[in-house]
Amino acid sequence: MKNVKGILFDIGGVLYVGESPVPGAVEAIEELQECYALRFVTNSTRRPPATIYAKLRRMGFTVEERQLFTALAAARQIVEEAGGRAVTILTEEAEKYFGELHCIETSSPFVVVGDAGENFNYPRLNRAFRTLMNGAKLIAAAKNRYFKDADGELSMDAGGFVTALEYAAGVEAAVVGKPSPEFFRQALHSMGLSAEEVIMVGDDIESDIAGAQAAGIRAVLVRTGKFRPKDLEGAIFPDAVIDSVADLPRLVEQNS
Amino acid sequence: MKNVKGILFDIGGVLYVGESPVPGAVEAIEELQECYALRFVTNSTRRPPATIYAKLRRMGFTVEERQLFTALAAARQIVEEAGGRAVTILTEEAEKYFGELHCIETSSPFVVVGDAGENFNYPRLNRAFRTLMNGAKLIAAAKNRYFKDADGELSMDAGGFVTALEYAAGVEAAVVGKPSPEFFRQALHSMGLSAEEVIMVGDDIESDIAGAQAAGIRAVLVRTGKFRPKDLEGAIFPDAVIDSVADLPRLVEQNS
Repeated sequence: MKNVKGILFDIGGVLYVGESPVPGAVEAIEELQECYALRFVTNSTRRPPATIYAKLRRMGFTVEERQLFTALAAARQIVEEAGGRAVTILTEEAEKYFGELHCIETSSPFVVVGDAGENFNYPRLNRAFRTLMNGAKLIAAAKNRYFKDADGELSMDAGGFVTALEYAAGVEAAVVGKPSPEFFRQALHSMGLSAEEVIMVGDDIESDIAGAQAAGIRAVLVRTGKFRPKDLEGAIFPDAVIDSVADLPRLVEQNS
Repeated sequence: MKNVKGILFDIGGVLYVGESPVPGAVEAIEELQECYALRFVTNSTRRPPATIYAKLRRMGFTVEERQLFTALAAARQIVEEAGGRAVTILTEEAEKYFGELHCIETSSPFVVVGDAGENFNYPRLNRAFRTLMNGAKLIAAAKNRYFKDADGELSMDAGGFVTALEYAAGVEAAVVGKPSPEFFRQALHSMGLSAEEVIMVGDDIESDIAGAQAAGIRAVLVRTGKFRPKDLEGAIFPDAVIDSVADLPRLVEQNS
């Protein structure tokens, strides 16, 4: 891990799991904030950025709000910049974050899908399907396959429901969050660094590891969160694997 | 339409739309029953075969129960023959039809998905996802994209939800109903006819028309049910297009 000037972190499963910080994570971030440019890039779409930021602060993480890049915020920005109306399948809290964008009179609506949990139900999905059949564009805030749920088991994430709408309506979603190269580029741009100077740290072999590598960024897999040993048996090879984010300062410092 | 000895009919959208028989359909079937071997092949998975049969009789169709081939019955047969347990996402009525297959103790469970309507909800889908992640096989009784709903608009059919599970769990479903060649073969076999001697009549450009043609069966599209003019602008070319099934006797007789 030579020539590291900036570090991108996934949040859920890396900095915390459920409601508990990963042991040593708070100290690791505090230490790394001193010598590196940090950004926190999350596909978490259940909550608006302010709530995620508040949770990190409450847990003791030394993070600034401008360091946070969330897929939900990026999706909202696309709809807003296009002057479009949003038909959303999101949690109640995330739907509130789209606020007045639900009501704009326009001929170019967007269907925006994030991890909606129990809000993935037939009436909502069918309404979105009909909107797509009438010409709306489909935006996947994220397209993750699954996440580690509160009961410790894996649960379906937004990805399946995005593909459901793609298949039924015969359309292709624009994916906003990781592994979209554009999402990584926005974070790099805000640091003023090039891909070669930055590493990505995540627990999702597809969105985090393959996604970062496709954007030219080296990727470090942590064995926390949704990590499963099987992740290392496929065709994706992380540049490094560490037990948890607590081991990251040693990894970047011993090589610099 | 020369050399026609047998005719396969889709049911919903062809013989009836909603609760009303297509005008002239009852008479057409009665006439064709005299000179042709007929089979009724449906991807309808909301109701068990007995209910579909009763509906056809109630509307006045001269149909025998042995002429009915339903995707739900074919899916049930696969699970039963494998001695497997079924974790189902179906309507209440169709779940009852699987009865004791829900309870069998076995190490080889199946997830069976049909058109479940309002039963497509997160708890059920996530339970199926977890069963698949533990090694179950995924059976799609049907994989249709949409159907014409009671309000006259198109609504999401089982296909989207099958792809949702495929994507999330990283598996591929075995599709039982149309356009599966095996489903068409079973109907042909029961008539003792070869593919060249049979035509398929349907309103679904993909499942009925492309499906039959892939099995070597000529296909006639009707302009009822889910038919939309756009269906004829793609890469699938029916062997004939008629306004409704009422025109079928003339089509097969003028050429025989």
